[in-house]
Amino acid sequence: MSWIPQVAGSGFDVDNLPLGIFVADGRARPGVAIGSYVCDLDALVRGELLDEPALAGAQTLNAFLAAGRARWSALRARLQSLFTDATGEERAAVEDALIARTSVRMQLPIAVRDYVDFYSSIEHATNVGKLFRPDNPILPNYRYVPIGYHGRASTIVVDGTPIARPTGQRKLPDAYAPVVGPAQMLDFELELAFLTGGPDTAHGHAVPIDAVRDHVYGYVLLDDWSARDIQAWEYQPLGPFLSKSFATSISPWVVSLDALEPFRVANRAIDPAPLPYLQPRDDWAYDIDLEVALQTAAMRARGEAPATISRTNFRHMYWNVAQQFAHMTSNGSIVGAGDLFGTGTISGSEPGTYGSLIELTRRGAEPLVLPGGERRAFLEDGDTVILRAVAVAGDRRVSFGEVRGTVG
Amino acid sequence: MSWIPQVAGSGFDVDNLPLGIFVADGRARPGVAIGSYVCDLDALVRGELLDEPALAGAQTLNAFLAAGRARWSALRARLQSLFTDATGEERAAVEDALIARTSVRMQLPIAVRDYVDFYSSIEHATNVGKLFRPDNPILPNYRYVPIGYHGRASTIVVDGTPIARPTGQRKLPDAYAPVVGPAQMLDFELELAFLTGGPDTAHGHAVPIDAVRDHVYGYVLLDDWSARDIQAWEYQPLGPFLSKSFATSISPWVVSLDALEPFRVANRAIDPAPLPYLQPRDDWAYDIDLEVALQTAAMRARGEAPATISRTNFRHMYWNVAQQFAHMTSNGSIVGAGDLFGTGTISGSEPGTYGSLIELTRRGAEPLVLPGGERRAFLEDGDTVILRAVAVAGDRRVSFGEVRGTVG
Repeated sequence: MSWIPQVAGSGFDVDNLPLGIFVADGRARPGVAIGSYVCDLDALVRGELLDEPALAGAQTLNAFLAAGRARWSALRARLQSLFTDATGEERAAVEDALIARTSVRMQLPIAVRDYVDFYSSIEHATNVGKLFRPDNPILPNYRYVPIGYHGRASTIVVDGTPIARPTGQRKLPDAYAPVVGPAQMLDFELELAFLTGGPDTAHGHAVPIDAVRDHVYGYVLLDDWSARDIQAWEYQPLGPFLSKSFATSISPWVVSLDALEPFRVANRAIDPAPLPYLQPRDDWAYDIDLEVALQTAAMRARGEAPATISRTNFRHMYWNVAQQFAHMTSNGSIVGAGDLFGTGTISGSEPGTYGSLIELTRRGAEPLVLPGGERRAFLEDGDTVILRAVAVAGDRRVSFGEVRGTVG
Repeated sequence: MSWIPQVAGSGFDVDNLPLGIFVADGRARPGVAIGSYVCDLDALVRGELLDEPALAGAQTLNAFLAAGRARWSALRARLQSLFTDATGEERAAVEDALIARTSVRMQLPIAVRDYVDFYSSIEHATNVGKLFRPDNPILPNYRYVPIGYHGRASTIVVDGTPIARPTGQRKLPDAYAPVVGPAQMLDFELELAFLTGGPDTAHGHAVPIDAVRDHVYGYVLLDDWSARDIQAWEYQPLGPFLSKSFATSISPWVVSLDALEPFRVANRAIDPAPLPYLQPRDDWAYDIDLEVALQTAAMRARGEAPATISRTNFRHMYWNVAQQFAHMTSNGSIVGAGDLFGTGTISGSEPGTYGSLIELTRRGAEPLVLPGGERRAFLEDGDTVILRAVAVAGDRRVSFGEVRGTVG
């Protein structure tokens, strides 16, 4: 139990301790979220309350992520101790390092070196596959290969960054040639993403799946903004490109695997059984509640709260993080600090649990009706999309916070 | 005419002046290739013979590329002057900065931020399309969209880096399930790649095609190593992933657009005409001769030179660099220093002009017969692949040098 006020039940108790990079007084530095505060880790290192050189003067978490699991655990244990047991001068120093989170601006937690997006919800792949290939929604490779592709690292942006509607080519179904203009089918995708660390893996070395835990630090929320009309026309044969590369938003606070440990649940049983290099001994599924909320400009003008348009859970993913990591390095690729891996859109099997508008509205054929009567097939300018995640078990509550972006 | 010996006809005369990062005495720094030398640009800046702060103490060319076209031109003009007109103390200082290229090691010229690979030879797309989709080799979007996708930036490696054969899933034609093992159909791809610079483009801003020249610094050779068996099984629906991400090699010397100016030729006439945002006023095709050479371990043991297995030219590409750049930013993506763009495999229309083994051997059905009698359907361990490029017009000769890699 923390001595910091109003921490219990906030989702940012001492069992969460997500890390991020905040800006206050014009200076970016690492912090940890605790209750409604950010605690300035650079100040704690300078004040010698923490012994973690990778955080001193850091403007990204990359060096700390590279430091590896032993140091991740040591930092977590030390912070838990400071936030629960500190007394006297130590406690006063921690109090001095607390800043209201509402008064700081968050930056990207890492400098992204490479960004990969997977496609790991078979429900999402089925829903979208039916729209693009009605007779053949799930391709034969899906149940063997954790399908993924590289996205654009330099357009990963943090929560709150405005999202400019992309222009591009789209081809109408009955037209021979495409037209160019602003995307008409702009969508979000509800995802989590994992951040890796430890020393870089060696070129040519496949990481065994049971060693993956040492390479994964934790998770953020990710919104893989997608222009469906551009995507449908461009994606064959080399995959999505400009339909995705204009922006990808992530939440600022990185929730560690350690914080999520109480929410691990049994791996999904999949048939056929995964190939041996994709069979983890441990459980890698997580019971994490996810939701998507939408607020239009008109709702905002009326002072109306964002409306929840989807609720789902992370536990049902077909491919898990250990399988994704093992697959990624199976060809000898180097992975380490700075790599960001999206899970792919997280959808359940029922309407109302889908992680994108193209699924929720059946490619626009069944628009959502929002409170107040507005209809949405796809996103319109002024719309704000908010993704949220929280893991709950009894009294425990570990929050990811949110990632939001306003279109236009 | 340079006062430096044996520069004329070397391909590295004062009209070339490619930049790179070399290591000598354990220290990486920028240099320019001239004749058989590298000239140490860090030394010239420190000695106040050059006024280019972005090169001082630099271990990549990123800052110099970000500096923009006016400073690129100023550096080129100053180096041409020093290498042709310098006398007295200046000439002595330049002489002191010359190091034999054979005695230095080259590094990557830039820290790669994002890597995109295009697919811009319609001959290559047709040849490969026929193998994967005999009835439908060129998809309807090809003649409208400069197809591209993101590759893995952190596995871009420099000339000479050993290439570990990747392991992965492959599915035999008559099998239901895939097997896992070392790739059996390892291939090269002959490409050029362009490096961009100037200030980052603005998010949401499309660069007009006639402004592209200010954003492109120059070219290198690129070998897009590809495991065809992994690729065939994994690439649907999101594109190539592990079949490419294990390694991509580039040549160390960046040849500027200015050096290639005399080799510009008329754009390929394409039908249908490109969409307006893809219609450049200027010519963006280049007459650059390309070749691929192969040396097996047995040939090396016999002291036999690499055998040329393909010769082609860059001038026939369907989509050019200006179109690629304009397309890339058409959706508002940010592009700047650190971005690397592969052209895609460069193939002509005749056998012997193809830029990959899958084309040269028709997916292995017609193996190459090498001098000495060895046969190659795909690459075997110990094989060295060498890509070379040179632009020739009369007495002018601008060399790219080469990029090589040995498998296994």
